[in-house]
Amino acid sequence: MEQPIEEMTRVDHRKLTRFVTAAFEKLGVPPGDAAIAAKALVAADLRGVDTHGVIRFSPHAWYVKWLTEGSMTASPKSRIITENASTALIDGDCGMGMIIGCRAMEMAIEKARSSGVAMVGVRNSRHYGMSAYYAMMALPHDMIGIAMTNASRQVVPTFGRAAKYGTNPMCFAVPADKQQPFVLDMATTTAAAGKLELAARLGKSIPGGWALDENAASTTDPRAAQRARRLLPLGGTRESGSHKGYGLAILVEILCGVLTGTITALNANQDPRGHFFAAVRVDAFRPAAEFKRDMDRLIIDLKSTPPAEGQERVYVAGEIEFETAQERAEHGIPLHDSVLKGLRQVAEQVGVAYDLE
Amino acid sequence: MEQPIEEMTRVDHRKLTRFVTAAFEKLGVPPGDAAIAAKALVAADLRGVDTHGVIRFSPHAWYVKWLTEGSMTASPKSRIITENASTALIDGDCGMGMIIGCRAMEMAIEKARSSGVAMVGVRNSRHYGMSAYYAMMALPHDMIGIAMTNASRQVVPTFGRAAKYGTNPMCFAVPADKQQPFVLDMATTTAAAGKLELAARLGKSIPGGWALDENAASTTDPRAAQRARRLLPLGGTRESGSHKGYGLAILVEILCGVLTGTITALNANQDPRGHFFAAVRVDAFRPAAEFKRDMDRLIIDLKSTPPAEGQERVYVAGEIEFETAQERAEHGIPLHDSVLKGLRQVAEQVGVAYDLE
Repeated sequence: MEQPIEEMTRVDHRKLTRFVTAAFEKLGVPPGDAAIAAKALVAADLRGVDTHGVIRFSPHAWYVKWLTEGSMTASPKSRIITENASTALIDGDCGMGMIIGCRAMEMAIEKARSSGVAMVGVRNSRHYGMSAYYAMMALPHDMIGIAMTNASRQVVPTFGRAAKYGTNPMCFAVPADKQQPFVLDMATTTAAAGKLELAARLGKSIPGGWALDENAASTTDPRAAQRARRLLPLGGTRESGSHKGYGLAILVEILCGVLTGTITALNANQDPRGHFFAAVRVDAFRPAAEFKRDMDRLIIDLKSTPPAEGQERVYVAGEIEFETAQERAEHGIPLHDSVLKGLRQVAEQVGVAYDLE
Repeated sequence: MEQPIEEMTRVDHRKLTRFVTAAFEKLGVPPGDAAIAAKALVAADLRGVDTHGVIRFSPHAWYVKWLTEGSMTASPKSRIITENASTALIDGDCGMGMIIGCRAMEMAIEKARSSGVAMVGVRNSRHYGMSAYYAMMALPHDMIGIAMTNASRQVVPTFGRAAKYGTNPMCFAVPADKQQPFVLDMATTTAAAGKLELAARLGKSIPGGWALDENAASTTDPRAAQRARRLLPLGGTRESGSHKGYGLAILVEILCGVLTGTITALNANQDPRGHFFAAVRVDAFRPAAEFKRDMDRLIIDLKSTPPAEGQERVYVAGEIEFETAQERAEHGIPLHDSVLKGLRQVAEQVGVAYDLE
């Protein structure tokens, strides 16, 4: 059974960030990098993207596990492979995606400052967490930010019966004026893998169009779907446009994989990963003030759409996450007992004080 | 009733292009521009994107109608508003989208040649036909091409009941080596508006998740859907990911509209339109030969996916269109009697010889 949110423990995000930073340092990550990675990880919890937050920070999950077993480089020597005024390709030396991701996005922003637009690819990296973190780094600079990553093989092409590529998310962040920025952060599947986890924990069924079972038949059983690892592209079926979700996912693999040389879809080990970042200076096209004023007009117009029967509001991409982040920054991040347990275990394993409850 | 393809008249694409060019010239379009626009229009028919081809070239439809009534400028004075090494914004002077589209994409390619990546926005344009035409212009240069346009208001945001924006298509074209290029050209709705037209003509029902009726209820009646003009975003319902299709469409409106100053979603007249073009030189990241060899590997791997029960093949984006184009280039473009009638009427109206049958 799922723990109701009101029974979860609220943890202050600054305290959580300090804890994760200290643990990363104990795991061999240089202090500056540890702080960067911790901030990116906790940002996911703040925004309500819980599947990409500290739930992945336990002895059995992702970053801690990979650093412990040595499959992820704690102190990577990332290096620039090619570079010109508006592009670069960086090798991540199998380090944490959050660190190389921030470095690459900063580079894209720096280049876009002079050239108007810039793209930076990363090869030989590991999981980078939540895409929105990098895309949103462009916002204070009045730039549009783009971040994408390839991912492990668990999605079935339209008309196919076997998984061939990953949930390959794409994120676009666009600054506005008084309105919150537009932030579209989406897996290119109908539903993110985390939604199966949640349905399985809650004992609920999933809608058709989300996933296939081990016989490649459509299933509504989240556990069967989890076993099979055969998610469907956004659209679900051909008739409902799944060739579009499939195509977008392959576009992500092209930009993150083929352009960088790290084609995760073709790698039996499913790692390393490739990423793609871009920044576009809006005032290369129009004065930033005009652009942001018009973003407000568009956003206000969309939010004013009369709601459908039974609905209360029409949202704009990122709006719910901004509201969640505000609430959680104020009242703390609600953490499930099982997540806290993982954090306690990390504290014991690496030898840092556990001060979160 | 729909005319079966075997009963349609096959017309040679070169002959059709010459006819359309001559008619455009009679309508006041300068000769060079007329040839460019005709080629782009007939390219849609060649690729099987019939909704964006010469079906829109009759006294009652689109280009001929707009040129005749003067709402579209036959000989536009397009001009550059802002420009730097890797970006530009062009004003299209309400001319034909195909002409300004080709000019803008050529400019993006030229800029990307020196800077690695370039983006060109167009404001104050009109309908540009098929997005793939522009994105594919990048392919012979070993570049990735991107083309997008905003469109007239007929799509309902997730949780809403009124149409607020257009089908806003996006296209990405990526070169390969021996394989056909990857060309993803998609409306950001579940189904393109042309699919409703087709179902209505055939007297068939449409699947749920495509459109709402005039009461904002889900409908399977294509005529009710056409009357209501309330298409649903890719995904159909929130549960099936429609917030992603909705978000992608708004991204297109941001790049084509907010970045250029021509926000069609907020314009009661639904015209002019804004476009967005980009080109990325793959060898700014990796040697083009390596990149294209890896594109082949990825494409071959996807095509080798075992097909689902009842399916014969797994496709890659653009594959069907390349096969169609090859067949139609050889055997002629099959044109419906009603389309030929429109072309005959144009011939009479503008005074060019009708030599297509």
